[in-house]
Amino acid sequence: MSTTLSKTAPEAPTYADVESAARQIAGVAVTTPLLESSLLNARLGCRVLVKAEPLQRTGSFKFRGAYNRISRLSVAERAKGVVAYSSGNHAQGVAAAAQLIGTPAVIVMPADAPAIKIANTKAYGAEVVTYDRRHESREEIGRRITAQRGAVLVPPYDDAHVIAGQGTIGLEIAAQAKAMGVEVDAVLACASGGGLVAGIALAFERLSPSTAIHVCEPAGFDDHARSLSGGVRVSNAAGASSICDALLAPTPGDITFPIVQRLLRSGLVVSDDDVLRAMAVAFRDLKLVVEPGGAVALACVLTGKLPLSGRTIAVVCSGGNVDPVTYARALATL
Amino acid sequence: MSTTLSKTAPEAPTYADVESAARQIAGVAVTTPLLESSLLNARLGCRVLVKAEPLQRTGSFKFRGAYNRISRLSVAERAKGVVAYSSGNHAQGVAAAAQLIGTPAVIVMPADAPAIKIANTKAYGAEVVTYDRRHESREEIGRRITAQRGAVLVPPYDDAHVIAGQGTIGLEIAAQAKAMGVEVDAVLACASGGGLVAGIALAFERLSPSTAIHVCEPAGFDDHARSLSGGVRVSNAAGASSICDALLAPTPGDITFPIVQRLLRSGLVVSDDDVLRAMAVAFRDLKLVVEPGGAVALACVLTGKLPLSGRTIAVVCSGGNVDPVTYARALATL
Repeated sequence: MSTTLSKTAPEAPTYADVESAARQIAGVAVTTPLLESSLLNARLGCRVLVKAEPLQRTGSFKFRGAYNRISRLSVAERAKGVVAYSSGNHAQGVAAAAQLIGTPAVIVMPADAPAIKIANTKAYGAEVVTYDRRHESREEIGRRITAQRGAVLVPPYDDAHVIAGQGTIGLEIAAQAKAMGVEVDAVLACASGGGLVAGIALAFERLSPSTAIHVCEPAGFDDHARSLSGGVRVSNAAGASSICDALLAPTPGDITFPIVQRLLRSGLVVSDDDVLRAMAVAFRDLKLVVEPGGAVALACVLTGKLPLSGRTIAVVCSGGNVDPVTYARALATL
Repeated sequence: MSTTLSKTAPEAPTYADVESAARQIAGVAVTTPLLESSLLNARLGCRVLVKAEPLQRTGSFKFRGAYNRISRLSVAERAKGVVAYSSGNHAQGVAAAAQLIGTPAVIVMPADAPAIKIANTKAYGAEVVTYDRRHESREEIGRRITAQRGAVLVPPYDDAHVIAGQGTIGLEIAAQAKAMGVEVDAVLACASGGGLVAGIALAFERLSPSTAIHVCEPAGFDDHARSLSGGVRVSNAAGASSICDALLAPTPGDITFPIVQRLLRSGLVVSDDDVLRAMAVAFRDLKLVVEPGGAVALACVLTGKLPLSGRTIAVVCSGGNVDPVTYARALATL
């Protein structure tokens, strides 16, 4: 996969790459607010600071990494464009970033992806190529299009610039907490392939090494938690299902996992019901629309998966691209 | 009512009062973000900047005015406390501001107010006195408690410091737009008694007098629109109903209306169905939970109640305190 990276991309990102990403996305990505609710704090007996990535361009954090990657294409690469495969947030992030940069984007999406996600990806100017999830390989289709066009593949997490872009969330949390005069005891972020949590861990390793970073996953897709406790990368069992459609990667990434393993100790796991209730709490107390995968870290706090009393916990709500029917299910838990 | 104001409160606020309010609430109120969606902009052919007051403390803009008023109480006044009557957002704003200042608050609320609003008001530390909406007068109860305790009444809109506090939204919109390098052609804000729109108008009169300010109301409660077009204050017809529970004041305020009349030309009116659809658009495109009253200004844009093409329109979404059942009705319009 490294042959598709631009020559300046290192294999694994460093703190300097995260700082560079922050300069790259400045004025284009949204510096999302760090929200809190005094009523929620009082109920939990701690201070919860919510990094509101649903308010990011395209409704999820994925825009950060996509823009950091695509904005570094050479002039020659821009002429040929980018390719990505994703059924959701990465698709929209890549499409929107490519549109802003002015490079063509082809997104390989399953034919049965939610209509709204296909429509939005097209609305950001991307060409959508659909495939049959049961009989075709999206990786193979992606490779074929990439080769045919001489395009650059933008991976969802196993890319140094993508990880560094997501890590800008860590820089922002650290700066926002400092401006509030608050010390952050722990940061919680969800993981699919691990780009978000790896990037945040790189930022905090430099800026606040005493802050504990926790990776949060839905039950059945706790590959990070099990890989961390076992010391080797493991995959999720086949046949598992979760409402967290953004968090279904089979295993921690090649580039992300060594970072996660070096900087994190353990993972936290919640059920789909916990996630629905966390979405409802975000609705009621924060007025923030959060999708299932985006609510996993908040669910870990609400269910007391770590010590809370008297502490300050930063939680990344990573996205808000949820269909109304699923959202209504979450509201029904109130 | 002026006898209940602290001695420094002028009858009608000026731009200097709005600037003073901004200093007073700095670091306590949230500087809410100005959100936008490139997909929404593309569909409408204009640039819509949404001032996200659901992300304010207590879930609505009302905290600004309440804190600006209550934080100016003298030591003697603080010992005796404040009184307010409100079934919703003003109640929570006054309760939370009083709690932060450390002064007792009594809120007079109808016994049949939504349980969550009564519970939240109590959770902010206020004493709630309920009354029978059909047989008792909240004004009379409020006056009696105010007199008994020597407390200060905090009016929902007819108070210079309350209006100036809400006007800080205008200062923030102007500063945020400037930081984005954008000229704002129009600002749209809802009105019940008119404190929000009057305060914003004062800010823009000084900072950008060419920006048009529009007041937005639900059908049946368009007292501002009719008062502006007729040149005299009129009341809403008895018996009207709307889902916009925050916007049911019978007539423009004594202090607010002269400001509104001087600085605005006309009002815009939308239906409850328009409002439900605007709540759904805020869910889908902005990931922001907006209550019916809070979505009226956005509804005016979405239904083309003013020229849009090529313009930049700032819209205040004023609050997000909505029950799940009403919210589900809004989602069903998608």
